Amino acid sequence: MTVQADTAAALEARAVLAPESEHPADLADRIGQLSLPEQVNILQRLPADHAAEALVEMDEGARIELLERLDTSIAATLIGEMSPDDAADVLDELKAEQRDELLSSLELEEAEEIRTLMAFDPDTAGSIMNTEIVVLDQELTVDEAIKVVRQDIEDKELPYYAYIVSDNDHLTGVLSLRDLLILPKGTILKDASRSNIISVTFDQKRNEVARMFSDYNFMALPVVDHAGRILGIITHDDVIDLINELASEDMLGMVGAGQDESVDTPAADSVKMRLPWLLVNMINSAISASMVYLFEGSIAAMPILAVFMPMVANQAGNTGQQALAVIIRQLALEKPDNERAFMAIRRELRISLCNGLLVAILVWCGVYFVTRIPLLCTLMVLALVMDMVLGALAGASIPLILKKFGRDPAQASSIFLTAITDGAGFFIFLGLVTLFLL
Amino acid sequence: MTVQADTAAALEARAVLAPESEHPADLADRIGQLSLPEQVNILQRLPADHAAEALVEMDEGARIELLERLDTSIAATLIGEMSPDDAADVLDELKAEQRDELLSSLELEEAEEIRTLMAFDPDTAGSIMNTEIVVLDQELTVDEAIKVVRQDIEDKELPYYAYIVSDNDHLTGVLSLRDLLILPKGTILKDASRSNIISVTFDQKRNEVARMFSDYNFMALPVVDHAGRILGIITHDDVIDLINELASEDMLGMVGAGQDESVDTPAADSVKMRLPWLLVNMINSAISASMVYLFEGSIAAMPILAVFMPMVANQAGNTGQQALAVIIRQLALEKPDNERAFMAIRRELRISLCNGLLVAILVWCGVYFVTRIPLLCTLMVLALVMDMVLGALAGASIPLILKKFGRDPAQASSIFLTAITDGAGFFIFLGLVTLFLL
Repeated sequence: MTVQADTAAALEARAVLAPESEHPADLADRIGQLSLPEQVNILQRLPADHAAEALVEMDEGARIELLERLDTSIAATLIGEMSPDDAADVLDELKAEQRDELLSSLELEEAEEIRTLMAFDPDTAGSIMNTEIVVLDQELTVDEAIKVVRQDIEDKELPYYAYIVSDNDHLTGVLSLRDLLILPKGTILKDASRSNIISVTFDQKRNEVARMFSDYNFMALPVVDHAGRILGIITHDDVIDLINELASEDMLGMVGAGQDESVDTPAADSVKMRLPWLLVNMINSAISASMVYLFEGSIAAMPILAVFMPMVANQAGNTGQQALAVIIRQLALEKPDNERAFMAIRRELRISLCNGLLVAILVWCGVYFVTRIPLLCTLMVLALVMDMVLGALAGASIPLILKKFGRDPAQASSIFLTAITDGAGFFIFLGLVTLFLL
Repeated sequence: MTVQADTAAALEARAVLAPESEHPADLADRIGQLSLPEQVNILQRLPADHAAEALVEMDEGARIELLERLDTSIAATLIGEMSPDDAADVLDELKAEQRDELLSSLELEEAEEIRTLMAFDPDTAGSIMNTEIVVLDQELTVDEAIKVVRQDIEDKELPYYAYIVSDNDHLTGVLSLRDLLILPKGTILKDASRSNIISVTFDQKRNEVARMFSDYNFMALPVVDHAGRILGIITHDDVIDLINELASEDMLGMVGAGQDESVDTPAADSVKMRLPWLLVNMINSAISASMVYLFEGSIAAMPILAVFMPMVANQAGNTGQQALAVIIRQLALEKPDNERAFMAIRRELRISLCNGLLVAILVWCGVYFVTRIPLLCTLMVLALVMDMVLGALAGASIPLILKKFGRDPAQASSIFLTAITDGAGFFIFLGLVTLFLL
């Protein structure tokens, strides 16, 4: 969005005459600012590989529109120029009939590879892997390997590693291009390659992949099948996108928004994604509020209770959300065992009790200043501290419990937390006052 | 945390005898499970480079304790084995006197480099850059360059690119090791290197760096001074950590927790970081609740208003948080111009109006079922829709406004949002009922 607007003609002249001069992401940004017919025109005139790269970098909505307008043969050429993982992602966005039409216009082998990638569960390692890898037989010498790499290398997206395999494609080792440069020419690859390679199977979860990249600083991680045969690699740039996506999912899911929403999502889609959770929230909220209904008589006798009641609930809600945020982020970065989970819950309870007692002093004084009723002040801070500790317990437990049952630990967690802190806050505060004061 | 526990002796035997066999992150995990004296013992017996790598991968708290227990000379050796950027990060965690003692035990040049890195503002590109880079004079031939790289390469952390400079260290181009492999041997680097390099200055913000990596799929990004001289590079693995950190900061900051909290933060530190925001929340909440105080008479006359009142506030709060989460995530991924910002706000207003009207139908029926007072139902849904739209406006605007004033767009945004939706919800609902019903 920081790129300056440009006239279509100026952009076209530069892009068509000197396509190398601009990064595809910048080119995509500039193309995105043109009208649709201009976009179609420029993509047709660009060299196919640059047009394909720019198309991959465009926003999803704009890309779909553009592919619908392009001739099938041109669209198929652009898809063919993409790396298979990008092609699979782009085709996945299209309607089934257009997708099939494009796939049938591609070369058979290429279409087969893309179809295979599209078949992987989108939440697994297989769906984000890249199949363009440099594979070397373990019996080659370094000298022979360099020859293979030189021939092979132009086609591959990111060939920083060569994967060493035995004759049945079993992954046995890895060498970086740097290793190939340094090693004596006659060395047999089998003897030189690192053999303690960390890999993932195609069906491992994406968040596990993200966690491994954070822990191990990989540049690329090989993906294998259950027999240990290499299928592809996941590269650092895919993981950067993945980590951003997972972080967004947590934040959006927590409050019941669509997990893949952005400001470019059509408003109607956002309504559909958010409405169910807003209804859940409304029902939760009605249940919490029904606690107040139990004490209608107390409120009639002492209407100022309706002033203090939301303060208790709100403060406990905030306390719980602090615990919730810490635990959800931790679950994004590690897979805790039971001991860590209990430690984390105990820690939140301690923090909430401390903060509760400190806030209580201020609140006692504030309520006394307004009401001059010491017992009311005491009951209010008692309810406040109890609800804050309960909020911390709920905030820390909800994501751990969701995770335990194989659910997304963030999904709607804030909504359920608020229901608990509101309902308990109203009940405890009004209950204590009714019991001891009225 | 998924690593199996191990006896100290078994771990030591394996780690000392065959240190190459385990990734430093795994070794660090295993060491972390031992007692402190065992940790000290094993770190002293490991080869210094492996001990240093494991130390870098350990949790901050454990690392600080360990460094306090190690002899200064051994600790200094380990620091010396680290890459300068890691060393700077580790030293930054220590108390000033221990840091100075360790720095004075290092070689002068090394200490100077680490001091320079520590001097960069922690929120800027300079603080995360790596200074171990391969720099080649632009007048060299490919053949000569390969010789330099072969001599130079062993010491460097991640030499996938060589940076091409003119004689005064001005960055003029970049070549990947892959390019060096492919190019004819006699080519002069100046003629072969890509010269449209994207770089950042040392004082650019970290979140800008993260955004560039997401957009451009870099493996490494050169950092230059304002005269264009190369200072270092930022690599993909540092950015993966950075993106995780920025995502945590958003999520934790939003609810007023410490932005670098994890479940390993000492509870006392968490109390200190969260308490100020809890007090802000309490005061905000008191201001919102004072709206109820204005209508004490109405509540005395019709106590059931105290039941419906928090439902209005809560639903608007949830609506606002959905908008808030979408905008905060968007700000993490792009730098919006005014047009995009207004588009995003308009979009949230449309969504909230739609959702508000749909929820209103359900709420009207529910309230009628409880009260049998059609006017009360109508006033309630009117207040609800108005407060939901206001919540969306506030949720979308708060981060944009904070950003505009150069503040962190997430910081405490949820706390201020809740104050607005609560206060307005109570005021509008009780105000409408007092005006038209009582």
